[in-house]
Amino acid sequence: MSLVIIGSVAFDTIATPKTRKERIVGGSGTYSSLAACYFTNPRLVSVVGDDFPQETIALLQKKGIDTRGLEVRTGKTFFWEGSYGHDPNQRETIKTEVNVFQDFSPKLLPEYQRSEIVFLGNIDPDLQEGILQQLQDPKLVAMDTISLWINTKRDALLRTLEKVDIFFANDEEIRLLTGERNLIKASKKLLEKNPFLVVAKKGEHGALLIGTEFVFCAVSYLCDEVVDPTGAGDTFAGGFLGYMDSVGNFDAAHLRKAAVYGTVMASFVIEDFGIERLKNLTLSDIEERFEKLQDLVLF
Amino acid sequence: MSLVIIGSVAFDTIATPKTRKERIVGGSGTYSSLAACYFTNPRLVSVVGDDFPQETIALLQKKGIDTRGLEVRTGKTFFWEGSYGHDPNQRETIKTEVNVFQDFSPKLLPEYQRSEIVFLGNIDPDLQEGILQQLQDPKLVAMDTISLWINTKRDALLRTLEKVDIFFANDEEIRLLTGERNLIKASKKLLEKNPFLVVAKKGEHGALLIGTEFVFCAVSYLCDEVVDPTGAGDTFAGGFLGYMDSVGNFDAAHLRKAAVYGTVMASFVIEDFGIERLKNLTLSDIEERFEKLQDLVLF
Repeated sequence: MSLVIIGSVAFDTIATPKTRKERIVGGSGTYSSLAACYFTNPRLVSVVGDDFPQETIALLQKKGIDTRGLEVRTGKTFFWEGSYGHDPNQRETIKTEVNVFQDFSPKLLPEYQRSEIVFLGNIDPDLQEGILQQLQDPKLVAMDTISLWINTKRDALLRTLEKVDIFFANDEEIRLLTGERNLIKASKKLLEKNPFLVVAKKGEHGALLIGTEFVFCAVSYLCDEVVDPTGAGDTFAGGFLGYMDSVGNFDAAHLRKAAVYGTVMASFVIEDFGIERLKNLTLSDIEERFEKLQDLVLF
Repeated sequence: MSLVIIGSVAFDTIATPKTRKERIVGGSGTYSSLAACYFTNPRLVSVVGDDFPQETIALLQKKGIDTRGLEVRTGKTFFWEGSYGHDPNQRETIKTEVNVFQDFSPKLLPEYQRSEIVFLGNIDPDLQEGILQQLQDPKLVAMDTISLWINTKRDALLRTLEKVDIFFANDEEIRLLTGERNLIKASKKLLEKNPFLVVAKKGEHGALLIGTEFVFCAVSYLCDEVVDPTGAGDTFAGGFLGYMDSVGNFDAAHLRKAAVYGTVMASFVIEDFGIERLKNLTLSDIEERFEKLQDLVLF
């Protein structure tokens, strides 16, 4: 099939209790396409400034990512600075500079418009909707979001939700969006809007898939050390959709496996800063963790 | 086999955002024996005051619990008052009156001393050790604890830990006891003290079994509504050990199943206040949730 990913490509400055990394490569589009590239050849749609390293773009290409949709514009690349506490679930945003992403309003290449799977990363819901309108009969539309849009563009977000098949969000974001604490009940409210699947990301506690016909709990792989949780959710979604694109079958059995592959990919990315760990994985690294997750829940 | 449970039998006043219940029956011994009674006939060792209702003791007996070890003493029963926020994981203790439990130092009946499985509920670790000394060659010793003892009787707790096979605690308590945030690393530190299994209870996120030879993740059953989380951990341990007593086999396959049965029992108890939901379950209620949990993690 074919998977197009729309998301940010950015510089991140990340502080953890042990280390600080200045201006390393990040962004939801980067993480999700680097996770997806182990399963398929994703198309990446984003924009960077002319300060963005050509060698990173070359790396994405080497990993089989189609970067024709990655625009390089005069100006500075999107920048985010965040800080984590001893509990890696506690994250604080120190600074966000939107820069060239301010006017991001991509016109998809004709070939991209015929993509069968679309991943709308956690960008402005109006932008997500504008992109959807360019697509010709996609088979599967997935979107992610963040609390910023739930708080500031709730109506637009709910409108976009009516046009998607899979909705990814953190558990707390789903609660915020629906006003319902119970994750199953909250997700069922969202299913009524149109999606056939809500994927509730729960960080170290894994992910819950709530479908119209089934519920599945993907537990997290148990990492020896969480170095940098940045991008875990985007990586999860990228692995999930990359796998779906590779199998081209959207039934429950494949959705369950997709969530486990997403979990596996997320388990790698958090073991080092930024995209470091996603650069040189092998399929056997991935399969090994997939099998360990099978054993982890076997009874 | 034979299972002896040592824990509190108490009155609890519980406030949730919606309801307040005054002086309902609770206590770690009550919850764990009522969970275990669906698998075996546990022996309960505890003490209550003469204000404790005879009809509750009759109920325990009717459920197949051996209450010869439940002493009724002149005075008032242990009392606890707690309050929950909208997030049921947030609990505040308002009041604790130890009452007759102050001098609890049970002398086990000769028959109880020959019990093959022992569950030391979350009582004073010195008391736990004193009970262990009365046992003649038990096959499996399990203990639970709470942060109170980690903070006030750490040395005694670590001494008791050297004599037990299975250590139950909440994830945060394990972190507190070891000073290590990573639950696997923290649990491995505890395994070095003697236990062959650490059971990290994670509330709504299930439980993690960390053994010398394996790791298992038991996910929580997804309840429609959490009414009262009191006793969930004790109920989990009671179901776990009740099942172990019924099969008499302590290998990994049975430990995994035991954790799932513990999860099932805990899923019932939180659906109503106090012990209400544990009074009238059927084996088919239990098997139904066991099977749903199999489906929940299947991939």
